[in-house]
Amino acid sequence: MTDPTATSQLQAYPLLSKIHGPADLKKLGLKELEAVAAECRKRVIELVSMNGGHFGSSLGVVELTVALHHVYESPKDRIVWDVGHQAYVHKILTGRMSEMHTNRQYGGLAGFPKRGESPHDAFDTGHASTSISAAAGMAAARDLAGRDEKVVAVIGDGSMTGGMAFEAMNHLGDIKSDVLVVLNDNQMAISPSTGGLKNYLVNIPLNKTYNRLRKFVWDSISLLNNDLGDTAKNAVHRLEDGIKAAFTPGAFFEALGFRYFGPIDGHDMEQMVKALREMRSLPHPKLLHIITTKGKGFKPAEDNQSKWHASAGGFDIDTGKALQTSGKPSLPKYQEVFGEALVELALKDRTIAAITAAMPSGTSLDLFQNAIPSRFYDVGIAEQHAVTFAAGLAAGGFKPVFAVYSTFLQRAYDQLIHDVALQGLHVVFAIDRAGLVGEDGPTHHGSFDLSFLHAVPNLTVMAPGDEQELRDMLYTALYELNGPVAIRYPRGSGNGAVLRKEFAPLPIGKGRVLREGGSIALLGIGTMVSRALETAGLLAAEGLDPMVCDMRFLKPLDTGLLDDVASRCGHVAVIEENSVIGGLGSGVVEYLHRTHPGVRVTHFGLPDAFVTHGSMAELYREIGLDAPSLAEKIGNFYRATPG
Amino acid sequence: MTDPTATSQLQAYPLLSKIHGPADLKKLGLKELEAVAAECRKRVIELVSMNGGHFGSSLGVVELTVALHHVYESPKDRIVWDVGHQAYVHKILTGRMSEMHTNRQYGGLAGFPKRGESPHDAFDTGHASTSISAAAGMAAARDLAGRDEKVVAVIGDGSMTGGMAFEAMNHLGDIKSDVLVVLNDNQMAISPSTGGLKNYLVNIPLNKTYNRLRKFVWDSISLLNNDLGDTAKNAVHRLEDGIKAAFTPGAFFEALGFRYFGPIDGHDMEQMVKALREMRSLPHPKLLHIITTKGKGFKPAEDNQSKWHASAGGFDIDTGKALQTSGKPSLPKYQEVFGEALVELALKDRTIAAITAAMPSGTSLDLFQNAIPSRFYDVGIAEQHAVTFAAGLAAGGFKPVFAVYSTFLQRAYDQLIHDVALQGLHVVFAIDRAGLVGEDGPTHHGSFDLSFLHAVPNLTVMAPGDEQELRDMLYTALYELNGPVAIRYPRGSGNGAVLRKEFAPLPIGKGRVLREGGSIALLGIGTMVSRALETAGLLAAEGLDPMVCDMRFLKPLDTGLLDDVASRCGHVAVIEENSVIGGLGSGVVEYLHRTHPGVRVTHFGLPDAFVTHGSMAELYREIGLDAPSLAEKIGNFYRATPG
Repeated sequence: MTDPTATSQLQAYPLLSKIHGPADLKKLGLKELEAVAAECRKRVIELVSMNGGHFGSSLGVVELTVALHHVYESPKDRIVWDVGHQAYVHKILTGRMSEMHTNRQYGGLAGFPKRGESPHDAFDTGHASTSISAAAGMAAARDLAGRDEKVVAVIGDGSMTGGMAFEAMNHLGDIKSDVLVVLNDNQMAISPSTGGLKNYLVNIPLNKTYNRLRKFVWDSISLLNNDLGDTAKNAVHRLEDGIKAAFTPGAFFEALGFRYFGPIDGHDMEQMVKALREMRSLPHPKLLHIITTKGKGFKPAEDNQSKWHASAGGFDIDTGKALQTSGKPSLPKYQEVFGEALVELALKDRTIAAITAAMPSGTSLDLFQNAIPSRFYDVGIAEQHAVTFAAGLAAGGFKPVFAVYSTFLQRAYDQLIHDVALQGLHVVFAIDRAGLVGEDGPTHHGSFDLSFLHAVPNLTVMAPGDEQELRDMLYTALYELNGPVAIRYPRGSGNGAVLRKEFAPLPIGKGRVLREGGSIALLGIGTMVSRALETAGLLAAEGLDPMVCDMRFLKPLDTGLLDDVASRCGHVAVIEENSVIGGLGSGVVEYLHRTHPGVRVTHFGLPDAFVTHGSMAELYREIGLDAPSLAEKIGNFYRATPG
Repeated sequence: MTDPTATSQLQAYPLLSKIHGPADLKKLGLKELEAVAAECRKRVIELVSMNGGHFGSSLGVVELTVALHHVYESPKDRIVWDVGHQAYVHKILTGRMSEMHTNRQYGGLAGFPKRGESPHDAFDTGHASTSISAAAGMAAARDLAGRDEKVVAVIGDGSMTGGMAFEAMNHLGDIKSDVLVVLNDNQMAISPSTGGLKNYLVNIPLNKTYNRLRKFVWDSISLLNNDLGDTAKNAVHRLEDGIKAAFTPGAFFEALGFRYFGPIDGHDMEQMVKALREMRSLPHPKLLHIITTKGKGFKPAEDNQSKWHASAGGFDIDTGKALQTSGKPSLPKYQEVFGEALVELALKDRTIAAITAAMPSGTSLDLFQNAIPSRFYDVGIAEQHAVTFAAGLAAGGFKPVFAVYSTFLQRAYDQLIHDVALQGLHVVFAIDRAGLVGEDGPTHHGSFDLSFLHAVPNLTVMAPGDEQELRDMLYTALYELNGPVAIRYPRGSGNGAVLRKEFAPLPIGKGRVLREGGSIALLGIGTMVSRALETAGLLAAEGLDPMVCDMRFLKPLDTGLLDDVASRCGHVAVIEENSVIGGLGSGVVEYLHRTHPGVRVTHFGLPDAFVTHGSMAELYREIGLDAPSLAEKIGNFYRATPG
């Protein structure tokens, strides 16, 4: 890939084009560091305007990143970027300036730090709240080995709401290892999510306890007033300052065994360099609290931080308007079909509640938040709590719907099993981003949910073949079932197949035949239903007449339909956008092997490997889940395997 | 089941035998409540001395439980007991006194609260740190419905180190729902585990910040000294008290939006009743910090709290000595074989580190802790952090071994995938309690690990058929592999098959033939290897000549051995102590179906349902995994299915 801007880079980025690694930042003075920061900011805006990507958080940490690489000595010192989408500037400064235009593209740089990509990327980070744990492990390794490198974790206030960040601080406060945690407080996660800790961080002077104590101090002081000379008055003032200090955010972190410093302005390079120098010289765990503005330096992003958390595609730098590739209105996304359907149902049913773990816009639950705020819960980046909170709501007589990305549901697997399924509670899991997600890559692909949900007792698992089915499945989950239910659906749009306004219940555990045929049957679920139809078209062109079924349910499996298929077809191919291990394919092979030994079954899905990032078309082609590849493999299977 | 002590209960428990539910506690005065508490304590000791069970924590909460049921109105008010093994007294007081002798026995009461067992059990709790989340959900449901019941979560200081407890408090502090959290601070989890927060709770007066500030206050006061009259001196004293208050644990919890009360003596009934009455009248989230002694009232348990966390079997009440059923020395447990082998290896290899999530004795890592304390890490009840901490250690050049119960590893599924497997880091997962665990029941059975690990790319998964194999697998994981590895092994003892001192590397992905034979092959893994041999013996008695293999590896699957089996046997039966969905059976069926269409495969494992509690023998029989049941089913399969 060639950089369309490469020829002009020398002119546009006179300083950055001379920075080939952190060592080149060491010799720079304050003014130059500020100039480097300005160039970084410009470059990030330019890059995201071309390719899309995460963005607000990278603009927020420009000065921090420049200052960190000026003061610390990566790669010897280890810098761990929590939810690595804030690491664009880090990549620019660590020798990847000339490759940044390939960011998030197939074969190009990853959108997140990646150990395999650079020695400066200390840890792969894509999910939130992991950085302090990883840093703690690296610090423990350093201490055991008697080395002297420094370890830094950079974590946002949103990620700080994830329980494992607390677990890590609690442990570090105990082992007292030298780690610097930089709390990048931009006063929001992806959305302006809430939480007791956040209120605490934001509202120190309004803190009730502080006010209560302050009142007590003033009462005490009034008793003293008559007795006091000037020296004493000074002492009382100092005393009040001391008490105030006791109520900075420090108290919270110091309780965990950290030394607390801050807050300081994260965009003030002079303060940042000074503070980091001081931090670097201190042993023991410490936390530096910096205040930054998400999207800093790009007006549209500063004004609407949620919207500009990331940009899916390119945009005009001056206006912030998305670059349209065609005049056609785009199809609604699955998430929108889900969000709208849930609002429709919840407006009529006061027992429906909606839960998100800091993803109201990513899940389209912002529609619910706006329509029915009283029954909407944003619990922070806290999937574990979200699931058990949902279980509590269900135990209290409500029907909670937890909308969550497939890959993040992995955070709450135990809670799903023990707090929901074991108790048979009626919680609906709306699993978004199931299957590949494209440019965000392996940390965000929803590759495993059919596998890890398959073995969970009491659970119903379904996946819609189109948008209409998603609506009906949501209705079915809420009204035809009375236990735990999971509906998995993909990122992006379907075929626009919302045909009717009314909801229709689906028979539980029943699929449907979409194309009559014989000799071979293609069984799809979710996104692979339309792919199966497309593949059948290609096979039909070769003279086969495939039957095509939309299985709809992973669990319970439609064994009646399988019996019917087996009576008509000697060959069966299962296609799913999930690991080939443990999902629908496994279920079908096991059933048909047991009951119809003569039938030959093959199945296709995501490979037993982590799939890279890139466009969906590129990824499908790489792993052979595009229709031409499928048609070829299924044709070969049919011809090679005696029926 | 009849209670052997039933006839004497009226005499032994004059008060308890008249308490049929919380309503009967309402009318009692302080002295009577204290007498009830004494009877509860006696009953718990008696019960556990007969059947074994969790115990230390139940003795610690006797007064709390009596006071809670005196002040609150269960079942209308909802009381959620975190890690429900502290709920024995709760069960005694809520109508189950006469059934308590069946506790943890097959068909009897569960060892944990169970919604299906009593309306007083608000939530099924078996894993730590869930109570505040469940309580928050119930409180939210109450608020939405406009009801007025109270919701209480009782949580120990150990469970408070789990991240989801923090997530829940953070959320509750934001929505400000009326929930009482009782922090039962017995100053240890199962083991005297550590953590910054615990140090904070224990060492308030030794807190550095407090001392720093106190010094400042005293300096200020010395400046004042000359000016002060008596009134002023009093004021300064009050001021010092105020500052001291600022450094109680309150500051930590108040930062999250809770009102903090305490600490008070959890064994002082008068204080407890008074405090709970006050709590019940307050809206908003609040935390009552009580100090209790684990094992209170039973001297051996008070003196050695780790050992007496739970008793596996009966014991003599006076001496605390275990009741021996035979004079034979017992076989070493798998966990001990693991713990000893790891110490042996780590004494020679300074890059090995050991990690536990608050389970040093349960995993036998206490052997490591004693032998090599510098490389031993107890991270608290924090499985998520444990895994990513291990990843950090591995990234720093060490070989971490995380010993964890199968069911608790579910807490760290996402971290295992993204922080270890995706990065190909060399972390060894020593998965204890894999398969059924007996009396602890469904929350503790390790039923799913083979299924949820199966689809994880880059991961090697193995299970030893005997103790010798466990030693060799640990060696193999550390020295023959360089990526993520899981070894799953069961609770309890094997057959005592430790034959040699030296470790031997195992070929990766290779099983072994244990019994030559033909026509049918039994493929076992882990505990089911010896069961397969036993079953083969029964089948041989019927005239069959089964081949038996120890598959050793789930992943990579030994396809060479399967080819060999298929060339010799037309029938194959796979046996595993894991869900029948998605484990070894799935892998074998899929492979043989594809490659040897003529071979008939069946498989046996844990059913697609939550298995109840009881003795291992009873449970195996119930689910048909005992040798006679297997022999019958496999014999039928062989006869009924044409080869």
